[in-house]
Amino acid sequence: MLVLAQQDSLIIEQLGEDLADVEARFAEELRSDLECVNDLAAHIERYRGKMLRPTLVLVSALACPKEDGEAASTSDAHRIIATVAEMVHMATLVHDDILDDAEIRRRGKTINNLTTNETAVMLGDYLISHAYHLCSSLPDAELARMIAFATNTVCEGELYQLHNRGNFALSESAYFEIIRRKTASLCGMCCKLAGYINGVDEAVCETLYGYGEKLGIAFQIVDDVLDLTGDEQTVGKSLGRDLEKSKLTLPLIHYRETSSAEDAAKMVEVLKRLSNPELDVAEREKHVGQIAIDLREHASVEYARDVASKLIEEAKESIIACLPKSAAQELMLSMADAVLSRDF
Amino acid sequence: MLVLAQQDSLIIEQLGEDLADVEARFAEELRSDLECVNDLAAHIERYRGKMLRPTLVLVSALACPKEDGEAASTSDAHRIIATVAEMVHMATLVHDDILDDAEIRRRGKTINNLTTNETAVMLGDYLISHAYHLCSSLPDAELARMIAFATNTVCEGELYQLHNRGNFALSESAYFEIIRRKTASLCGMCCKLAGYINGVDEAVCETLYGYGEKLGIAFQIVDDVLDLTGDEQTVGKSLGRDLEKSKLTLPLIHYRETSSAEDAAKMVEVLKRLSNPELDVAEREKHVGQIAIDLREHASVEYARDVASKLIEEAKESIIACLPKSAAQELMLSMADAVLSRDF
Repeated sequence: MLVLAQQDSLIIEQLGEDLADVEARFAEELRSDLECVNDLAAHIERYRGKMLRPTLVLVSALACPKEDGEAASTSDAHRIIATVAEMVHMATLVHDDILDDAEIRRRGKTINNLTTNETAVMLGDYLISHAYHLCSSLPDAELARMIAFATNTVCEGELYQLHNRGNFALSESAYFEIIRRKTASLCGMCCKLAGYINGVDEAVCETLYGYGEKLGIAFQIVDDVLDLTGDEQTVGKSLGRDLEKSKLTLPLIHYRETSSAEDAAKMVEVLKRLSNPELDVAEREKHVGQIAIDLREHASVEYARDVASKLIEEAKESIIACLPKSAAQELMLSMADAVLSRDF
Repeated sequence: MLVLAQQDSLIIEQLGEDLADVEARFAEELRSDLECVNDLAAHIERYRGKMLRPTLVLVSALACPKEDGEAASTSDAHRIIATVAEMVHMATLVHDDILDDAEIRRRGKTINNLTTNETAVMLGDYLISHAYHLCSSLPDAELARMIAFATNTVCEGELYQLHNRGNFALSESAYFEIIRRKTASLCGMCCKLAGYINGVDEAVCETLYGYGEKLGIAFQIVDDVLDLTGDEQTVGKSLGRDLEKSKLTLPLIHYRETSSAEDAAKMVEVLKRLSNPELDVAEREKHVGQIAIDLREHASVEYARDVASKLIEEAKESIIACLPKSAAQELMLSMADAVLSRDF
């Protein structure tokens, strides 16, 4: 979870309690009368991460005043929506682990601790189904409608990204469209729904959406940069996976657009070579390392980080302009910064 | 779609119009601003089948009287639930096409016209997400809750089945538990929700659920029998797929339980051989053909068909006892028979 210094300790305590409640609801919702299903659900624990989405719901709830002017607080509805958002996010992680034939040949089953692709598909479906089941325990169908709208958009983003695999001419605007949909739409919706539940007016809801969306885009940019230049130990997964999958991300697009035609063509050649599943590990690592060096030297990594920073600044300004000053508002600002420093 | 002779022509006309409306809503709901998503959604057409689930919703709606004693009719809510049920079903079909590594090696990509496993996963998710999005356009969250309860159960059934792959000692009761969940729960819910929307009392809702559930179980038994003994042309897919996947179905369980210990052991040996992805096609076909002969000679196919017939009789009796005589009730009885003769 987020490490935040110097925040109001009451808020931090409240948030900790709420997140523990979210974890309990998560486990409770997934419980089955079939033991084999419970065993699989236990696997999901290994996907449990930074709880970014639930935290966005809860902190937004605390930061925006209620309709009747009462002090902001979190409600059962917030904790349910927070659980639903985490469940949907976990489902996308489980489904992201589904392998293609080329990858299966290359990686064997090491990447996938679950028994088979088919089991991973069904386990992800089980999560999605339970997310909606839990969401529909709230009597206002509009909440489920908005969550589903966000997940429609997430799926579109994923499909758009798959469609653009191997498209080495991917434009910057198409890249932003992909990550806005696949990552940022759910983050935006988490913040918006917190406000909606508190009954704040539509303009505030939209500002909250914008804050979450910008955080989500920045988060994904940083994630993509780490895949290229991070430290495997810190990132916790093998690097260069986007390169292997011929997924162009912001630093590469910047490099292609701003380097000489010759250098750009050379980069594309290397990317094509990396997409070959038969490539041996040593050569793969050499290429990935060289790309990281080229991107740094060309300031393409810096460019991507700057774009992310600018989005974070905008997100923070919008919250300062729109919400009353409070410890929770401070927390929203700190969360935004944490996306950049990757304390999340 | 269902071919029914001698039914009240007004009912048939109504049903035809409603099903056309369901198809239109289905296409409308999936429309995206991204062309690549629309192209993929067009692939889904090839999965469009007999519209069993939407038909169950609509016919149940017409057969059970409304709370206020008015003549039964279908409403927008029925047509929406019918569309949602078809969308969920299509998602399971798309996800059933996800391949495992062994299968990929054996079949190449012929079985999967979509580009990759990953695209099939996301396209299925897109369908599920839109199903809930559409469902939540109805203000009563309880409808989405009940649909999600059914899809929770479907996923459990699929996971339970995957868990039991290669379990050649699978009991008859475990087999029924699998198909009750993976196939029959959604069919049951389709019928129940039609009554719920019409405001009929809970006992009638449960009878409707039972009718749909029994139809679903019978449907799956017949489907499993056809995989063993059907005609490839008629069934429209290659036979023996359950055998290759080491999925035991009712005729095999009956054979194992009622034949000599020696014959049962021999059958298990053949099943183990069939699960080998390296087995050549000629040998595979020889084994599948021999199993079909053994099952017929041992009356195991007849046994499975008898179980399905008995369920259909029970389903029909429950409807005759519970609902007023009407053309729609007649249609429910004909639908039950159609499951056996596989006009569906």
